[in-house]
Amino acid sequence: MIIVMEAHAGLEQIQQVSSKLEEKGFRVHLSQGVERTIIGAIGQRTAATMVLFETLPGVEKVVPIAQPFKMASRQFKPESSLIKVGEQIVGDGQVQIIAGPCAVEGRSLFMEVAQAVKEAGATMLRGGAFKPRTSPYSFQGLEKEGLEILAEARQITGLPVVTEVVDPRLVEEVADYVDVLQVGARNMQNFFLLRELGKIQKPVLLKRGPSATIEEWIMAAEYIISSGNHQVIMCERGIRSFENYTRNTLDLSAVPVIKQLTHLPIIVDPSHGTGKWKLVEPMALAAIGAGADGIMVEVHQNPSEALSDGPQSLTPENFARLVIRVKKMINALQATAEE
Amino acid sequence: MIIVMEAHAGLEQIQQVSSKLEEKGFRVHLSQGVERTIIGAIGQRTAATMVLFETLPGVEKVVPIAQPFKMASRQFKPESSLIKVGEQIVGDGQVQIIAGPCAVEGRSLFMEVAQAVKEAGATMLRGGAFKPRTSPYSFQGLEKEGLEILAEARQITGLPVVTEVVDPRLVEEVADYVDVLQVGARNMQNFFLLRELGKIQKPVLLKRGPSATIEEWIMAAEYIISSGNHQVIMCERGIRSFENYTRNTLDLSAVPVIKQLTHLPIIVDPSHGTGKWKLVEPMALAAIGAGADGIMVEVHQNPSEALSDGPQSLTPENFARLVIRVKKMINALQATAEE
Amino acid sequence: MIIVMEAHAGLEQIQQVSSKLEEKGFRVHLSQGVERTIIGAIGQRTAATMVLFETLPGVEKVVPIAQPFKMASRQFKPESSLIKVGEQIVGDGQVQIIAGPCAVEGRSLFMEVAQAVKEAGATMLRGGAFKPRTSPYSFQGLEKEGLEILAEARQITGLPVVTEVVDPRLVEEVADYVDVLQVGARNMQNFFLLRELGKIQKPVLLKRGPSATIEEWIMAAEYIISSGNHQVIMCERGIRSFENYTRNTLDLSAVPVIKQLTHLPIIVDPSHGTGKWKLVEPMALAAIGAGADGIMVEVHQNPSEALSDGPQSLTPENFARLVIRVKKMINALQATAEE
Amino acid sequence: MIIVMEAHAGLEQIQQVSSKLEEKGFRVHLSQGVERTIIGAIGQRTAATMVLFETLPGVEKVVPIAQPFKMASRQFKPESSLIKVGEQIVGDGQVQIIAGPCAVEGRSLFMEVAQAVKEAGATMLRGGAFKPRTSPYSFQGLEKEGLEILAEARQITGLPVVTEVVDPRLVEEVADYVDVLQVGARNMQNFFLLRELGKIQKPVLLKRGPSATIEEWIMAAEYIISSGNHQVIMCERGIRSFENYTRNTLDLSAVPVIKQLTHLPIIVDPSHGTGKWKLVEPMALAAIGAGADGIMVEVHQNPSEALSDGPQSLTPENFARLVIRVKKMINALQATAEE
Repeated sequence: MIIVMEAHAGLEQIQQVSSKLEEKGFRVHLSQGVERTIIGAIGQRTAATMVLFETLPGVEKVVPIAQPFKMASRQFKPESSLIKVGEQIVGDGQVQIIAGPCAVEGRSLFMEVAQAVKEAGATMLRGGAFKPRTSPYSFQGLEKEGLEILAEARQITGLPVVTEVVDPRLVEEVADYVDVLQVGARNMQNFFLLRELGKIQKPVLLKRGPSATIEEWIMAAEYIISSGNHQVIMCERGIRSFENYTRNTLDLSAVPVIKQLTHLPIIVDPSHGTGKWKLVEPMALAAIGAGADGIMVEVHQNPSEALSDGPQSLTPENFARLVIRVKKMINALQATAEE
Repeated sequence: MIIVMEAHAGLEQIQQVSSKLEEKGFRVHLSQGVERTIIGAIGQRTAATMVLFETLPGVEKVVPIAQPFKMASRQFKPESSLIKVGEQIVGDGQVQIIAGPCAVEGRSLFMEVAQAVKEAGATMLRGGAFKPRTSPYSFQGLEKEGLEILAEARQITGLPVVTEVVDPRLVEEVADYVDVLQVGARNMQNFFLLRELGKIQKPVLLKRGPSATIEEWIMAAEYIISSGNHQVIMCERGIRSFENYTRNTLDLSAVPVIKQLTHLPIIVDPSHGTGKWKLVEPMALAAIGAGADGIMVEVHQNPSEALSDGPQSLTPENFARLVIRVKKMINALQATAEE
Repeated sequence: MIIVMEAHAGLEQIQQVSSKLEEKGFRVHLSQGVERTIIGAIGQRTAATMVLFETLPGVEKVVPIAQPFKMASRQFKPESSLIKVGEQIVGDGQVQIIAGPCAVEGRSLFMEVAQAVKEAGATMLRGGAFKPRTSPYSFQGLEKEGLEILAEARQITGLPVVTEVVDPRLVEEVADYVDVLQVGARNMQNFFLLRELGKIQKPVLLKRGPSATIEEWIMAAEYIISSGNHQVIMCERGIRSFENYTRNTLDLSAVPVIKQLTHLPIIVDPSHGTGKWKLVEPMALAAIGAGADGIMVEVHQNPSEALSDGPQSLTPENFARLVIRVKKMINALQATAEE
Repeated sequence: MIIVMEAHAGLEQIQQVSSKLEEKGFRVHLSQGVERTIIGAIGQRTAATMVLFETLPGVEKVVPIAQPFKMASRQFKPESSLIKVGEQIVGDGQVQIIAGPCAVEGRSLFMEVAQAVKEAGATMLRGGAFKPRTSPYSFQGLEKEGLEILAEARQITGLPVVTEVVDPRLVEEVADYVDVLQVGARNMQNFFLLRELGKIQKPVLLKRGPSATIEEWIMAAEYIISSGNHQVIMCERGIRSFENYTRNTLDLSAVPVIKQLTHLPIIVDPSHGTGKWKLVEPMALAAIGAGADGIMVEVHQNPSEALSDGPQSLTPENFARLVIRVKKMINALQATAEE
């Protein structure tokens, strides 16, 4: 890290900072500028050490140099991580298509949509058993019964199943039923939940929080990885901006950025990312263009009867059309990549 | 709610929406405009019903009319809620001054600062025993030992104690030790935690999430109240905007807005709200001007040695100066109010 | 528009609003709800009338129903607008590739890059003669000399030329030299400039302001169109959000949204949209996936020597590679569309 | 500035950067870290030099150390600037109260409100003759006639007059009529307008753009000052955030920040800052608490009939009440400051 001293900082203050740095195990490089002195500190910084120096007298600011994440970074592990989910491998250049309703609403409804998306080309199923809802008066999910339906759908279709876990007390139970545990956007910084997920050995789909920077999102992945579970899949699902025509602003530049900074695969959720079904197909195709390892799409037989997030769901017919277009596009991109 | 039909919606579509509304128990008012038909639906909407109608054919948008919160609203309870905390009453026109370090770092350090802020005029103590930290490599709090130190400080100083609870499994234990349970900004939509807090009978200090709208924040309060606990104190602590000179953008207009929309008291945290100790005093005075029921300020004997959030902490001396200025200002405002 | 009365509004207040509405030429529909009265007002609202009613006693809020833009809307003109630029037609399903350096830095440099991008497949040239710069100490463009270089490059390459106009006093002069006049993001709401552009008969490329909602952006187009110039091309170039890893957040969902709400073509600028050259190719491909009518890309022989916006420029070699991939993708998408 | 090299940057790349730095007149300090090399560059950077180095091979990022503004900074001029406006001095510790309607709508209306706000304690008058409006169909101001009304009101009341200038071609004319020329939020980065304002010798009130960082705002002031006009008054009027209950998010922390970074006075506009008249008084008092040198408040005899921005206007009676409370608060703060 670099410590920028105030323009009027005295020699004594500069020396105090330097001694303190050496006391904490840093090597120190002084650099006397036209207007101010800059102190380079070489060693292993933590957030705590930055904070410590920021409040010493005469210090204007502390500039971090190295990234705060380690195990998630591409520097730490240059080759891309491949995450095995059932027969699928996330991150191997194929595009995963995860589909299903926002919430599991009942056994027969779910089996029907599961079959439909499988036939259309989905590679994994999704469905929520526990729903974190903004209003206490909204449908909160079928809970345990929903998990059982998901497990049955996996058996029938042969597709792996993704579902959200919302409570650290339920991590183990949910892991018994499904193939991928999803961390919802609102829980991205629920550190107690992240640590529980670090203790299991199943893939975790980590959604970006609506106001999380890319760095904070990677730090959330770092929580899971540093707790022992390396199988993290990132999922961009839109950030909160001033624009409110769409529910969120889908930040597709996150796709190449995550691939440059980390070794983790990343998928995109255009359904939550826009909140409008008419935008799902164009944004799914855009995600493929940006280089995503997969997309996660909400599909419901009858979106207007859905108990949760209907307006962003596709019908099975629209989904089938989307899969065809996605596949054409993947082929085109792969053809160019090979040239 | 109001349902705006698309310009080219046909009679059949209008009738389908109307029948569906009646089926769901709404009274229907049709209004044929120049360009489009608008359907007024009178009855008790939920988020689910809005979503249902938004996806019917021919519907352009559904406009909610009534507020989604009930028990927190001033319409539901016109008189302001007074929340008793020890001998103090939050919301009675006095200004509460809650002070202490971000994290409890050790017994003697905490007792010292507790005495100092009490002498300077603090009315409550604060200190974190559990710290939700962005980085897994940062100090995470003294946990149980921190709770014991807080309880002892309360006994010695006679001041009530506020601390954060981060895990639904720990709500009861934390409630045994402290007077006010704080929900941190990152947990504002941790609905499982909110529901546990609805089951206890101690005041809850509900911090606004960094990307939460005022409506979402009130809905979080609604979770706690509708689960059985009416003692909710709101706390504005800054929202995330594009401006990054300050750590957050302290949204002081939230103070009069919360007082207009709800019956709940609201305090302001200028320390987290700005992230810079030099801005704490002006923003604390601004909060009083805006009509806040209290302020929550970080104080540390030696901010540059603090293990958590040092740069935003005041020294006990600076805090004492702030209390004097705050009190003068309160007197001036009360004098005018009485005229 | 719809006028929502306060819960406690009296009969007299409801009648005052109704009379006022009729006085202003609206037809009135009263609708008595459980909690409050809602007044539907049928007629031609303006912003001024909304404001008028919002402050009448007893009014809680005024909800606009119709869109504020007319001539830009797809309702007004259902078929997509085709904008002729030289031999090219923007909006006809082909993808325009506009390329060149951020600023015109000198005659020979510009001719060289113009030839290079033409050979790689660019369909139009871009280059700034007037640069609106955040700092008064930065390079501000070659001005008149820059315009002459642009005109010469057009003659040599046969490609149409796009440049920014920043001052209403210069609109006519710039129009004499170039084929498309660009409104920069910072000038999107410079209404005096927009009105001048409405008086000429050349295409205008209207960049979205960094904090403009989609509705405000369309209203800026409405200024130009309603002043007499129908040839408006929209250009998404990123909005300002809290995320600062990228310079802006490229909002690709704006592409399908603009196509749904208006009849105007839209192109995407991934260079300014991200600020990092390594992100330009993936985001250009993503833009195509989203359905854009073109992309605008910065290319510079030697990005590290560029006087303006170097870090987001591609080399001619990288640009040539991008064009190949873009074309493959377009073919794939068109093949599916035809099926 | 500091140049952080990539972890795998080779010796040759480090030497290339160093030579280039020396070629550009910088002194160079190499600092070999555990993970990477950092190069300190001592000398006068411009935005252009930063950009140049950011794209050299092996460079990860360039970190600016010094602030980009010079003449506006408190380092350049440590004592606070006092701006003389008529008999008033902005920035001398007194609080200026600027009041009047958003737009000048007619002679007699304006004279009436001018008298009313003068009697209530206003120290300056405001009123718009040219209105930059989002919609081309909205009232755009009385233009020249408005200026004449303003000049007459000044003569009658003896109060200095503030009005907005929107077009660089009109700067001189507007300066002939009024005492302070306002740059509206949408024009904060209209650099041609700023430069014209740098050529006159009248005070300029520079509103913050809705998406401008504090640094960009100060750079806009730098444009005016470096063009020759030192009389700049900053005006915070709210930034755009995701929160849309209020029209903008009033960023009061900008008040102490501007006072720390620059020598310029700063006032606050709580009317535009909130967009709701019920929030104007609490936010005006908050602004005083934050240390503002003045407030600018919209007052209209009959807000619901106002042609522009009615919902945020106070009646003369509400304004008179606000002035009384503001004055009490100023007295209280000054009493403490003197202790």
